[in-house]
This record gives sequence, C-alpha cells and structure tokens, in this order.
Amino acid sequence: MSDTRTNAGVDNISVFKKMHVWEIPGERVLTLMTAGNLATTQAVTSILEERTKAPDEREPSILRAPSMFQAATMVGQILKDVIAQQEDAGQEGTSQFHATMILGGQIKGGQPSLFLIYPEGNFIEASSDTPFFQIGETKYGKPILVRAHDANLSFEEAIRLLIVSFDSTIKANISVDLPLDWQIYENDTYVVGETGRITADDPYYKHISNAWGASLKKALQGLPAYQL
Amino acid sequence: MSDTRTNAGVDNISVFKKMHVWEIPGERVLTLMTAGNLATTQAVTSILEERTKAPDEREPSILRAPSMFQAATMVGQILKDVIAQQEDAGQEGTSQFHATMILGGQIKGGQPSLFLIYPEGNFIEASSDTPFFQIGETKYGKPILVRAHDANLSFEEAIRLLIVSFDSTIKANISVDLPLDWQIYENDTYVVGETGRITADDPYYKHISNAWGASLKKALQGLPAYQL
Repeated sequence: MSDTRTNAGVDNISVFKKMHVWEIPGERVLTLMTAGNLATTQAVTSILEERTKAPDEREPSILRAPSMFQAATMVGQILKDVIAQQEDAGQEGTSQFHATMILGGQIKGGQPSLFLIYPEGNFIEASSDTPFFQIGETKYGKPILVRAHDANLSFEEAIRLLIVSFDSTIKANISVDLPLDWQIYENDTYVVGETGRITADDPYYKHISNAWGASLKKALQGLPAYQL
Repeated sequence: MSDTRTNAGVDNISVFKKMHVWEIPGERVLTLMTAGNLATTQAVTSILEERTKAPDEREPSILRAPSMFQAATMVGQILKDVIAQQEDAGQEGTSQFHATMILGGQIKGGQPSLFLIYPEGNFIEASSDTPFFQIGETKYGKPILVRAHDANLSFEEAIRLLIVSFDSTIKANISVDLPLDWQIYENDTYVVGETGRITADDPYYKHISNAWGASLKKALQGLPAYQL
C-alpha cells in the first residue's frame, strides 16, 4: 500500500501515484513503491518504463531481469545514478535528492521476494524475521504494524491493518494523505492481483478511521489503571 | 513522564534522569524535562541548579522568577547560550549540540503552565487546543496520544496512557528505554505531587506492555475486514 501525497513545502502539495507495476502475465510481476524526492523517483520509474519499450537496446530491462535479485540490483543502480547526476549538477547538500524504494514481486523460477532499496543503490531483502518494510514517513505507523502483524493475516485483514497504520500517520503528519493505493500479489500466480484506490470519501475508510479511535480508547480502558 | 536512556552511538548507552524539579513548598513547583545532547542538557540543569544555591549573586535564579513565563525565558536563554558556547568552540555542525526541553509548573499568583522550549531559546505554551507536548523521539508514541488524550483523564488513567505511548516507542526504537520517571502536579497545590520510577521488572509495566499488544489485535479484529 502506498499513499499519494507529495509536497515541496506546505504550500505546494500534490497527488502523485507512488506505486508502479510491470507485468508479463504468467511469467513475472514486479511492483515498485517509492518515497523521497519526487523528481528522483519519477526519473527512476521513467527510465525503467522507457527500457521496457525499447527492448532492442542494450540497456537491461526490468522485464528481462532473470531474477528478483537482478531486478533489485537494476533498480538500485538506476536510483544511485539518478541521485549522482542530480548532485553532480552543482547543487549543495547530499540528502535532498534522496529516495528509497520497495520492490516486490516474483519472476518465474524464483520465490516471491521483497526488497528495500537505499539511495546508495544497495538493498536488503525481507525474511521471516523481518517480514515487512516501510519507507518514507514510517514512525507513526510502525507500532501497530509491529504489534499486529501476523504472517497468517488474510489479504482482507492485511488491508485493514495497513489502513489503520496509514491512518495513524495521516492523523499526525500532513506529509502523508489519501488516496491510498493498494495491490495484492498472490504467490505463484504471476499476474497482478486485485488492485484498488481508497479515497477520503470511501465509506469503509471513514468507518475504520472513526471506529479505530473509539476502539483504542476502549482497549485502553480495558487495561488496569495505574495505582498511585 | 520521561525515559532515562541516553546514547552516544549504539555501543555507548547509559541511564540518566531527564526530569528535574525545583520546589519552594507552598510557593512554586517547576519541573524540567530534557531531550537531545546530554552534555547540553546537563550543562543547562547544572547552571539552573547552581544559581539556586548562590542566591546572592546577580544571576537570576529559577527559584526567584516572578512567573512561569519568566522562568521559561530564563531556561531558554541558558539553553541558547550553552549551545552557542559549544558551537563557538570550533566544532562543525549546528545541530549536534541541540536540545529541547519541556518546562511545567506553577508559581503563586499565576496559572499552571506548560512550555516547549526550543534550542533557539524561544518557546511555545500549551493551550486547550494543544494540551500536551512531546520532545525527543516523538513519532512512534504520538498516534495513541492524539487518539486517546482527554482533558478529563484521571492521573491514574493518564499514567496508563503515557506508559502505552512510551511502550510503543520502546518497542520500535532502541534510543528510548525504561526506567520511566513520572511526576504529578496538582493545580494550586504548590508542592511536588506523587513521583515514581517504573523499571523493566515492574509487574504493572509488564502487564500493560503484554496486554496492550493483545488488546490492539482484538481491537483490530473488532473492525470489519476490507471487502475485496
């Protein structure tokens, strides 16, 4: 799941999709989510996109990467190059062009994989010990994920948990906001699963957002108060 | 409430009290909590403390400040001076000596007040619209405060809420840890209220920490799952 808010200061707020999908049905699905400098992330996704449309060029395409590891290496290299180009252009500061990405998916012959790709171009892979990644404004929404994540959640329950996590951030920080894009990938299907966008006027979102506040208060009241 | 963990890198972690109290029973109570560079915050509290013990010197003492506003001004000025001294010493970087503080209390003749004091020496005051402040590693613990804060909480309920908020941060970030120090001030009493320290082996803390995870899961399950 990804939000769609970008900002260049509080007086320049826009909606941009931060989730990008490449698919060869029956063979591979790759989903990329981005956080950080919008010019950087758009450049990276545009380069990735362009290469899929000029298959005869020598440049490697994410649609031809032989494995998820190779795909993550490719994304990391492009991300690193784009940032280096921006920084070489004479601007000061090393962090302002930075971006972080999550790449998930599956390529036939391999396992489904999930990578967190750093601005330096290197990356780490999720495992059963660390089964989820967050990027961007991660802190507000992390405690509920840490507490309630469970490998046995259904997709419906996972989306509910993600909405609650995002809503905690949305309530606390104006740099994150609806609409929320979500996408499901089911292991070994090699096709994009169900996909959706949750907008601010979505009745389910409004219900969860309101009911969660009440549920939290009730959960707190169910714990014994401190004895002075 | 304040935690007690300080770190200068992950291999240099110590316990220091971050809550300091000055009291003239029947006349004033001032409580200062600190976050940020430990050398800076210790210098500020040491200067404040020293001045209370040399009452004949010309330097103003927090025990003589005529109002909470004047006390906050004094703390802000000392904080700004200490940071400026460190930065003047030839070190690079402007943020590494920074610290932020919360000053709360009441001085006879005035209302109880709560201030958030910035490294620049200026400060803001809590109001009914923004009734609480956090400093330091604030993000993980903020969502539950935003959702569950209520001006009508009893002291016992408020401590329970603060423990849950701190526990969310402790679970997510090693820069915050127990013991937790807490202190109550009851309006118009002009004496320090009940005070305590919650350690990692405190049975109440252990119960809350475990039960809160289960309560959150139950609260989530009580919400309708997303319909695919």
